[in-house]
Amino acid sequence: MSDITMTQHTSQALQESTPAQIDAAVRAAVEANDQWASSGAAARCALLRELATALEAERERLVAVANEESFLGAARLNGELDRTAFQLRAFADAVEGGEAFAVIDDAAVPGAPPAGHPRLLRVNVPLGPVAMFSASNFPFAFSVLGGDTASALAAGCPVVVKAHPAHPQLSNAVFELALAAAKRAGAPDGVLTMVSGASREVGVHLVRHPDIAAVAFTGSYVGGMALQKEINARPRPIPFFGELGSINPIIALPSALEAQGIELAKTLAASIAQGCGQFCTSPGVLIAYDNAGTDAFIGQLAAAMDSQNTHAMLSPGIRNAFDEGVARLNRHPAAKRVTTGEQSADRHPVPNLVTLDTEAFLRDHALREEIFGPSCVVVRVKSSGQLLQVLAAIGGSLTVTVWGADRNDAETQRVVRGAVKIAGRVLFAGVPTGVAVTRAQHHGGPFPSSTQPQTTSVGLMAMHRFLRPVALQEPPAWLAERSGTPL
Amino acid sequence: MSDITMTQHTSQALQESTPAQIDAAVRAAVEANDQWASSGAAARCALLRELATALEAERERLVAVANEESFLGAARLNGELDRTAFQLRAFADAVEGGEAFAVIDDAAVPGAPPAGHPRLLRVNVPLGPVAMFSASNFPFAFSVLGGDTASALAAGCPVVVKAHPAHPQLSNAVFELALAAAKRAGAPDGVLTMVSGASREVGVHLVRHPDIAAVAFTGSYVGGMALQKEINARPRPIPFFGELGSINPIIALPSALEAQGIELAKTLAASIAQGCGQFCTSPGVLIAYDNAGTDAFIGQLAAAMDSQNTHAMLSPGIRNAFDEGVARLNRHPAAKRVTTGEQSADRHPVPNLVTLDTEAFLRDHALREEIFGPSCVVVRVKSSGQLLQVLAAIGGSLTVTVWGADRNDAETQRVVRGAVKIAGRVLFAGVPTGVAVTRAQHHGGPFPSSTQPQTTSVGLMAMHRFLRPVALQEPPAWLAERSGTPL
Repeated sequence: MSDITMTQHTSQALQESTPAQIDAAVRAAVEANDQWASSGAAARCALLRELATALEAERERLVAVANEESFLGAARLNGELDRTAFQLRAFADAVEGGEAFAVIDDAAVPGAPPAGHPRLLRVNVPLGPVAMFSASNFPFAFSVLGGDTASALAAGCPVVVKAHPAHPQLSNAVFELALAAAKRAGAPDGVLTMVSGASREVGVHLVRHPDIAAVAFTGSYVGGMALQKEINARPRPIPFFGELGSINPIIALPSALEAQGIELAKTLAASIAQGCGQFCTSPGVLIAYDNAGTDAFIGQLAAAMDSQNTHAMLSPGIRNAFDEGVARLNRHPAAKRVTTGEQSADRHPVPNLVTLDTEAFLRDHALREEIFGPSCVVVRVKSSGQLLQVLAAIGGSLTVTVWGADRNDAETQRVVRGAVKIAGRVLFAGVPTGVAVTRAQHHGGPFPSSTQPQTTSVGLMAMHRFLRPVALQEPPAWLAERSGTPL
Repeated sequence: MSDITMTQHTSQALQESTPAQIDAAVRAAVEANDQWASSGAAARCALLRELATALEAERERLVAVANEESFLGAARLNGELDRTAFQLRAFADAVEGGEAFAVIDDAAVPGAPPAGHPRLLRVNVPLGPVAMFSASNFPFAFSVLGGDTASALAAGCPVVVKAHPAHPQLSNAVFELALAAAKRAGAPDGVLTMVSGASREVGVHLVRHPDIAAVAFTGSYVGGMALQKEINARPRPIPFFGELGSINPIIALPSALEAQGIELAKTLAASIAQGCGQFCTSPGVLIAYDNAGTDAFIGQLAAAMDSQNTHAMLSPGIRNAFDEGVARLNRHPAAKRVTTGEQSADRHPVPNLVTLDTEAFLRDHALREEIFGPSCVVVRVKSSGQLLQVLAAIGGSLTVTVWGADRNDAETQRVVRGAVKIAGRVLFAGVPTGVAVTRAQHHGGPFPSSTQPQTTSVGLMAMHRFLRPVALQEPPAWLAERSGTPL
């Protein structure tokens, strides 16, 4: 996400948690920690599944509240609630499957080192209490009971949620429901706590707390970097899993535009405008060769974008940031606007497309910044060398999409290699919006798409962020027998 | 390692690489990158095994040079060379085994999300050129061809070595031998390059370089934090795998001291004095209950330490830092010295043991700082509660050793849980010096023992530091067929 101001757009603001309240929330998490860290699969699955069921049971009320606060629409919000329940259950299944808690047992080898060695039993242990920063753009799936919370609980870590001020009522409703579900599931008090507030101080106090063992964050570059700085300055820095933004380039190779240009234009326009472009994976750059086929495609894409309807954006702050970003882009001397709609004063953004040449895109860093909303930039390249330069300048992205990579030739390999270098996920069909929750998913990628590019915040491997290996050397029998079950 | 001054102690100083030379070394690595990243197991194994063979072939000459520069003695240095060759071959075997390059293939599931999804194929790709900072205390195993280099090469990353100024001739000799071996193995030019210099500027220029994709470092807290700060300030921060120090507490539970006190005292004294205590895993703190058994053990330990012979330390800078650290400790009002030897003006340090009470250890941070050399502090605790407070105050350690944890009772579990919380490796017998190179090994742990506590710098899992997952969504057939073989 791009830099946005955290302004309230509702009178039902969340309370600002005081330092004492934040300390109390962390203390409760610490008190729950040993019990939750040593809980077995049955206890964790009971909690995760109870949370999923509770969300679904309150679907109608929750979606209504979410829609009032986010304007994302009932269809999308119902789908998002489905996904949130799905991933809570998927992590429960993963806990039962046991992969994340698999041990490596190297039997002792007699003799002198380096070949000889004592027995070593490698186990994964939970990190401890996790601070989880909710995002505005997924009020269910990246909020109170979203993927970060689900994966941390599955790993055996209590979670202190920092509620997002853009959906205060929903956060309270989901948190209350979660507390009741946790009680039903027999989870320890304090396994899930919540703090809130729109001010910078709340988040800073939370990540500075000496008992917080890791931080998960999805949000703006500026907000994330401010937290990273605080974490770096701790006497004992801790892992910070931050997803700070991505412009998700789409590379349209000529064969794809020839074969299915109109269809791709419509699909891409819908992806750009979907949810008002308020996605981490919204496609912000199209890279295409400077030729007649691209000219035609740009016309088709602009027309398809002009015909998209949008709803209100998440907050006035996000709406203003979008307007400012688009205005800056449109008045850039190198940019040529090809969509025709003008931004109006209401809450609905108008999709915006400009074209640029490679030189301008490489020269001016501002042209590569994420504009959070339905905006896309077309960069025309004259060679695959230029295409690779453009990818390298983009640098780190959650996704890169390559259309037309079906033929295995040196040129295509070169382009795909360039895509892989900067991305956490590389798509060869379709559009990057919509992130499947599976075992193979990787929602990360080089900075700034992730502050820890070797980890994912979506999919079953997200649980590994909250586990740490420990090698037990010559463990006593009682401990070795516990094997994958932490202490 | 503690903070040490990087002073030269030999007239055969390494040249200071100029910025242009460092840029050239990185450029060569970049030019080798695509070929090496896409190389198969055969090419990587050929290189790793050729390097191991070349080290062994030059054993006599290399050990002599190493001994002249490090004073560690022929027996230790021969053993270290064995280990270095062993781990080069172990990483070759691991590449052939293929575990690090295993893919996860989630077949497409028809239907709407969240259950329905496209095919996702998760592969691991190398990060790119790695900057590797050699350590002074392992002139073979943590230097030019040490574990960081071996694991990065195995992962498919070219390596730019920053040679350590404490063993310039050995670094040059090993690097030259490595270049010849790389040529014989058919590896691309630039797969291994080297820069050198004792100044801060060389390291800073290297980690700031935009084409460096990750940094591996073993060394002092101050040096490591300076590099971390530079890396945090990069426009695009990169992974920093730093091992910055550890005091490796040993918890002596009463049953262990009763059963085998004298034997343990001798073993521990030898571990403290081994290699002049110049190990990341040197035991710096003994935690024991305040009772008569502990009194007796302290007497035995002090006597055993007084009878240890030491050799010269690695450098005058390290020797001076040790003297200063020990003098500061011995004049601390809460410390009572129990060894009797006095430091002399020569290069040989004298082992030093003091006792403290818990309150002083908890109150004064300086008492918990690593003293690099043969120094140990005994902390007497009055309860397991105090014992856990002491562990929490230590905070992050490569190892914790627990003697006497054989009985499975609540008290022992509590102590072991406290040990696991702060350590990367927990030992239940023996001493922490000597780190086995196996698959289950974990040489990491919470900050400052590692800047990335989820990773290890020793053992086969070290390779994972230099790989990053990428999810390929609906990959074309030619790409999916490559599977674990990167592009």
